[in-house]
Amino acid sequence: MGEFGLIEHLTKDFPIRNPQSRKGIGDDAAVLSFGEKEVLVTTDLLLEGIHFDLRYVPLKHLGYKAAIVNFSDIYAMNGNPKQITVSLGLSSRFTVEHIEELYSGIRLACEIYGVDLVGGDTSASATGMVISITCIGEADKEEVVYRSGAKETDLICVSGDLGAAYMGLQLLERENTVAAQSGKNFVPSFEGKEYILERQLKPEARKDIVAILKEKGVKPTAMMDISDGLSSELLHICKASGVGCRVYEDRIPIDYQTASMAEEFNMNLVTAAMNGGEDYELLFTVPLSDRDKIETINGVRMIGYITKPDLGAALVTNDGNELPIKAQGWNAFSGGNQDC
Amino acid sequence: MGEFGLIEHLTKDFPIRNPQSRKGIGDDAAVLSFGEKEVLVTTDLLLEGIHFDLRYVPLKHLGYKAAIVNFSDIYAMNGNPKQITVSLGLSSRFTVEHIEELYSGIRLACEIYGVDLVGGDTSASATGMVISITCIGEADKEEVVYRSGAKETDLICVSGDLGAAYMGLQLLERENTVAAQSGKNFVPSFEGKEYILERQLKPEARKDIVAILKEKGVKPTAMMDISDGLSSELLHICKASGVGCRVYEDRIPIDYQTASMAEEFNMNLVTAAMNGGEDYELLFTVPLSDRDKIETINGVRMIGYITKPDLGAALVTNDGNELPIKAQGWNAFSGGNQDC
Repeated sequence: MGEFGLIEHLTKDFPIRNPQSRKGIGDDAAVLSFGEKEVLVTTDLLLEGIHFDLRYVPLKHLGYKAAIVNFSDIYAMNGNPKQITVSLGLSSRFTVEHIEELYSGIRLACEIYGVDLVGGDTSASATGMVISITCIGEADKEEVVYRSGAKETDLICVSGDLGAAYMGLQLLERENTVAAQSGKNFVPSFEGKEYILERQLKPEARKDIVAILKEKGVKPTAMMDISDGLSSELLHICKASGVGCRVYEDRIPIDYQTASMAEEFNMNLVTAAMNGGEDYELLFTVPLSDRDKIETINGVRMIGYITKPDLGAALVTNDGNELPIKAQGWNAFSGGNQDC
Repeated sequence: MGEFGLIEHLTKDFPIRNPQSRKGIGDDAAVLSFGEKEVLVTTDLLLEGIHFDLRYVPLKHLGYKAAIVNFSDIYAMNGNPKQITVSLGLSSRFTVEHIEELYSGIRLACEIYGVDLVGGDTSASATGMVISITCIGEADKEEVVYRSGAKETDLICVSGDLGAAYMGLQLLERENTVAAQSGKNFVPSFEGKEYILERQLKPEARKDIVAILKEKGVKPTAMMDISDGLSSELLHICKASGVGCRVYEDRIPIDYQTASMAEEFNMNLVTAAMNGGEDYELLFTVPLSDRDKIETINGVRMIGYITKPDLGAALVTNDGNELPIKAQGWNAFSGGNQDC
């Protein structure tokens, strides 16, 4: 059935009863209304052995990333994260020092993004580590951006570059396997690969992009964060907005290290960039009339445009062919509150 | 270090930066302020083998209870629950039918309490079931009740009766052990014990008490839900309010089935009622001047009064002795968002 199908199936019989529940399942965050501001809520459940591997993820980085992925969901609604709650399940192999390490990463993320930790809960766990984070954000009523607002002729934009986090994970997994086979004297070689490792281990949420769009007077018509891969997120926006899209292969932003790693692994680079996931960049659409403003923003690239729904979603390759976009998203930190 | 000490230790270096964060860690729920209404947030992480045992807890009941314990935290702030998000980690032994059962319990709780499911996330789990629920509620600014407002001479009140859920668990565990030893022909005997089983398997949150207090014009000075046991919660209120208390043994409300089960198990009844946990009743304090109003409320009992801090917290036994109250709280669904 797949994750999205399952959530849809399980939650279809839950009606919305309260006028304060503006938007429930089906976006990066829920949108609640209790007064002047809209309240945004998103939550992530991370399980050891499924979403993270402590053999190569330092606990401080894990804490940082676990917080960031939630902040990213709030930014993707054009809001600002304000509070988080953190619940931990811990098996007996974790010491207080381990948990302090994890929290030091969460604390750093809170400091940098100006977010308050307002709730906590720790409990024993029969096996491994469980991290559940809920993030609350706010936005002015007229500022919230959903997935559903993309219109024909809108420009499709992405921030930063794609595929690096995925290639970083491939590298970590390879070095980990080699290390396991080689014994204690093995020293992994990460030189010249710092960027893709950082993208995997210490991603950032694009607070800066949300701020600069506001500064430039650009309100996206639709927005998401890229957690499951560009292909998957494009399909989400097309489905929610009832539109199609064309995206140009030669416009997909890819870093040099990502490209060189893909070559080393003999992987198709565009596939990695389209389906890699965990980039936590922003994918958004803007009216054609905002083109000039977008062009002045560093680190944002226009990669295509929105079409009529019957044209479907396709990647225009460098030789002019149109390949239908399929969701092959992969994301170790998958799920996200409202991803269905 | 203990759960409370650990949370305190881990979270001491997290300052509150946002004016919207009115109350962080240290109560039943966080209190956030985004406009006219206060927004209350509470979260619970429930792990199979730690917080619940699927050998004797039906999935529908588990779903119901997992929702209820979060609603209870919001009522304990004198608020009303409005939304929940539900994240699930599921190992491969669970089928779609199993998850539907769990969700049917969550749905029933949402129906009865008028709460919207606004977010969901399901993921694979390497072992067992993980349930993480976050509940959002609202309250008028001047209506929120913290643990910290109890004053000398205030009356201490509890709703319902205590110890039944704990005795229900003892019964379930005994029957489960006997069943495991006896094989397939064993039929557990629950006759005359329906009440304590229901208290364990299908607890309710005291929405009615919060409503009737409002109706009578009584605003508690301090309030908590009894999830870890009366002793533990009394100490929380005394610590947060900087007061002491006297509670009378003969005033503790105990149901007949609880008493008869304690006798069968040869357990001290008052100990079970004071430390049992999982009652999800409300413990609250009111000014002495509200005594007449409280006396008219069915199902609420005055059990003692608040004293100067230097008198400490004590139980006045039937023979007139004073026993210092110690936290021996036990709660399978332990933790709670802000319990530190």
